[in-house]
Amino acid sequence: MAKPKKTPRPKALAPKGFRDYFGVEVTQRAEMLNAIAGVYHRYGFDALESSGVETVEALGKFLPDVDRPNEGVFAWQEDDEGGKGDWLALRYDLTAPLARVYAQHRNDLPTPYRRYAMGPVWRNEKPGPGRFRQFYQCDADTVGAPSVAADAEICAMLADCLEAVGIERGDYVVRVNNRKVLNGVMEVAGLAGDDKETARGIVLRAIDKLDRLGFDGVRALLGEGRKDDSGDFTDGAGLADAQADVVMGFMQAKRASGAETVVRLRELVSGSTIGEQGVDELELIEGLLAAGGYGPDRIEIDPSVVRGLGYYTGPVFEAELTFEIFDEKGRKRQFGSVAGGGRYDDLVKRFTGQEVPATGVSIGVDRLLAALHAKGRMSATEAGPVVVTVMDRDRMADYQAMVAELRQAGIRAEVYLGNPKNFGNQLKYADRRGSPAAVIEGGDEKERGVIQIKDLILGAQMAENATLEEWKDRPSQFEVPRNELVSKVSEILSLHGLEK
Amino acid sequence: MAKPKKTPRPKALAPKGFRDYFGVEVTQRAEMLNAIAGVYHRYGFDALESSGVETVEALGKFLPDVDRPNEGVFAWQEDDEGGKGDWLALRYDLTAPLARVYAQHRNDLPTPYRRYAMGPVWRNEKPGPGRFRQFYQCDADTVGAPSVAADAEICAMLADCLEAVGIERGDYVVRVNNRKVLNGVMEVAGLAGDDKETARGIVLRAIDKLDRLGFDGVRALLGEGRKDDSGDFTDGAGLADAQADVVMGFMQAKRASGAETVVRLRELVSGSTIGEQGVDELELIEGLLAAGGYGPDRIEIDPSVVRGLGYYTGPVFEAELTFEIFDEKGRKRQFGSVAGGGRYDDLVKRFTGQEVPATGVSIGVDRLLAALHAKGRMSATEAGPVVVTVMDRDRMADYQAMVAELRQAGIRAEVYLGNPKNFGNQLKYADRRGSPAAVIEGGDEKERGVIQIKDLILGAQMAENATLEEWKDRPSQFEVPRNELVSKVSEILSLHGLEK
Repeated sequence: MAKPKKTPRPKALAPKGFRDYFGVEVTQRAEMLNAIAGVYHRYGFDALESSGVETVEALGKFLPDVDRPNEGVFAWQEDDEGGKGDWLALRYDLTAPLARVYAQHRNDLPTPYRRYAMGPVWRNEKPGPGRFRQFYQCDADTVGAPSVAADAEICAMLADCLEAVGIERGDYVVRVNNRKVLNGVMEVAGLAGDDKETARGIVLRAIDKLDRLGFDGVRALLGEGRKDDSGDFTDGAGLADAQADVVMGFMQAKRASGAETVVRLRELVSGSTIGEQGVDELELIEGLLAAGGYGPDRIEIDPSVVRGLGYYTGPVFEAELTFEIFDEKGRKRQFGSVAGGGRYDDLVKRFTGQEVPATGVSIGVDRLLAALHAKGRMSATEAGPVVVTVMDRDRMADYQAMVAELRQAGIRAEVYLGNPKNFGNQLKYADRRGSPAAVIEGGDEKERGVIQIKDLILGAQMAENATLEEWKDRPSQFEVPRNELVSKVSEILSLHGLEK
Repeated sequence: MAKPKKTPRPKALAPKGFRDYFGVEVTQRAEMLNAIAGVYHRYGFDALESSGVETVEALGKFLPDVDRPNEGVFAWQEDDEGGKGDWLALRYDLTAPLARVYAQHRNDLPTPYRRYAMGPVWRNEKPGPGRFRQFYQCDADTVGAPSVAADAEICAMLADCLEAVGIERGDYVVRVNNRKVLNGVMEVAGLAGDDKETARGIVLRAIDKLDRLGFDGVRALLGEGRKDDSGDFTDGAGLADAQADVVMGFMQAKRASGAETVVRLRELVSGSTIGEQGVDELELIEGLLAAGGYGPDRIEIDPSVVRGLGYYTGPVFEAELTFEIFDEKGRKRQFGSVAGGGRYDDLVKRFTGQEVPATGVSIGVDRLLAALHAKGRMSATEAGPVVVTVMDRDRMADYQAMVAELRQAGIRAEVYLGNPKNFGNQLKYADRRGSPAAVIEGGDEKERGVIQIKDLILGAQMAENATLEEWKDRPSQFEVPRNELVSKVSEILSLHGLEK
């Protein structure tokens, strides 16, 4: 008889570019999102949760700087007898869905509409190290408010968010600029007009690379071009020296105070209406922030901020962490940008034909979590549950009663549910779980009305450092009456600074 | 010249079967998930968050009771030059991803592995009223624990979760049964054996419909079949009277106490090894729960619970809300099931060949939210922000300073960011936002160092009920010194029972 053909087993693997998050990775992010939502809410923003799926039609042109339809998104066609089903796609950010939601529900929404949204977005891109195809975004936007007071408010809110998640004042700065000033500078440099669009694009991207290339590198890109370390050559914008000087002057216009920077910018854009309007707006924003108590120790005007995306039309802002960390190669570097945003004015025009002004911010929660870990302000592990061991499998009810008591006192606790035969395995399990304490009640203890409690944290410390004398002096295992279970465990937890 | 062809505007619509959630709909669900996560965590369960996307290969056979590949899921093929890309799909529940995660990471996970997961899942089904193609699941499972102590623990945890989200004791019951008892009953009724599989399936589905059909309806389905109100006929299992009596006896085996029910069940399965084992397990579960203080006021043995899904192999459980609500047609009915689960033992076998026992529960958060709303325990609206109006657009900095003060005191507040020209529109906006208070500072007030605060909640109450006399006696607008802004607003908020 032929052997029955075996179906090959499926591979147990997450799809390429996707990953799983365990334990504290999940809870720390949830706490961070919760803290940020609290700030957004206090600023009058309302929660919005749209689904992960949108029609391709509503999502529109997809990612900025990507032209091919469907490129960069996960899309599929709805089943339909005639093959004429709608095309659906996973959202690639939270702004495109906001446009759709606002256009769909605008008659029921207040104007202005302040909303926040947080959740996963998906990008159909080549995954790389630390680059995933699903990640979180955490946005707040104000729709329908033309005044730069809306932008100022968002900058203040961003500073409050960073402090709410544990970034101390002095460890971050929110840097504000205005695209209109940059447009004014372009005008003054003779780069206005449709025929100069390519050159303007190169200038924009060059300024955005200041962090990486330094002033000399940017200067080269404004002129003929630049050869990088590998020998590759990037074409420049082809600006004449005088033109390039204007742009370089703009990037280096930052002065000791916002007021001085404003004066310098006014000189640079002199004669350009749009440029002067931009400087007025920056001045206004600074005044509004100062009135709310947000001075240059938190938020400052910085003309070198441009934000890459083409669609910003007014104020742009970026939050940067200013402390140094060591990168994966052990080199010191600034941590860099963790949030950014700005004003964009064509949010819902595609849907309704009406221009609706909008401004918003997106906070990179995964970057922020990485920063807090790098600074040692967040632990990579959490305390596990107290483990009640099983000495006698027929007395499971006694052990269940113990964990019930501990849980009712708010203490994280579990009974060992594996095979209880080998006691060593139970303690290995407790170790693997990061348990602060184990509870033991054998037949002998039961008879005498006592239990044994092992302080596993102290035990581990002793095992590492202690002399024999110290072992004797500081026992890490205690015998206490059964009715002192909760109080003794609580004592051990607070000894180690573990909150319930 | 021909007119340039206009691109038609995209429709601003969520895809069919998907919806948007606004404000409290989002925050109340987030709070509920947070409360449930707290209970899961206290029981020693660790958070797990896998991505929304899995390979079709890993997801496997898809939804229970659906045979056609890809049916019921949203799936697409990865781009690849040769058209040989992997097939990916959105997860349709949280159990299939758990199987993949456990198989993939089992060497790094503790055994037993207790994990909880919460997040959206997607079903490619025909949408209907109140039936959406994206919804939340909120699961906890224990993998690798063969003991029914794991099932008992999950029942206790389920009861704690319901109380943690605001369902009072007495308003719910967790009902426990065991598939092995049912299998024993089938054996006794002569329904064992592969050739009786169809009949067993009909019996299972008939019992599961008890709520809707009553005992007579189920009895008909066990025998020849049943004609429903519309005249449609459903084929029955074709059981002889004696066989049907055994099954009916099982469904009606519930007695005044768990102990009596166990005695009755033992009579019914007498002679069936599997049946007797099932009754032993139920007895054990009840004992473990009693030891933890979970008596029949919260958790009870109920032989009529079978849970539809074919894959359960041991204990099954279901949480039911016992209070009555009025349905959309104004009829009184029991609210019904809000959570359920049970033991299933082939979780990771597909991947590894090893049988790994598992048991888990899934809580229907959207059903629970609906229940709390139906009971009036949750508000459909939330208090909006305090609105600082703009009387003089050149003094925006003054108004920003006010909201900054309010927010720093923890009060939700915003400055009006629409066009300030028409003051009436500002008050209409405050009304639409559900604001408890509006703050007004015109030029005259500014000069005198005072502000006006309107109590909008009192104002609305007065407008509805008050006589002219009362209007005069109880002003809803107050003039206070500017430096009493925070204290007066706080006073108004606490007067209306609004927490900060």
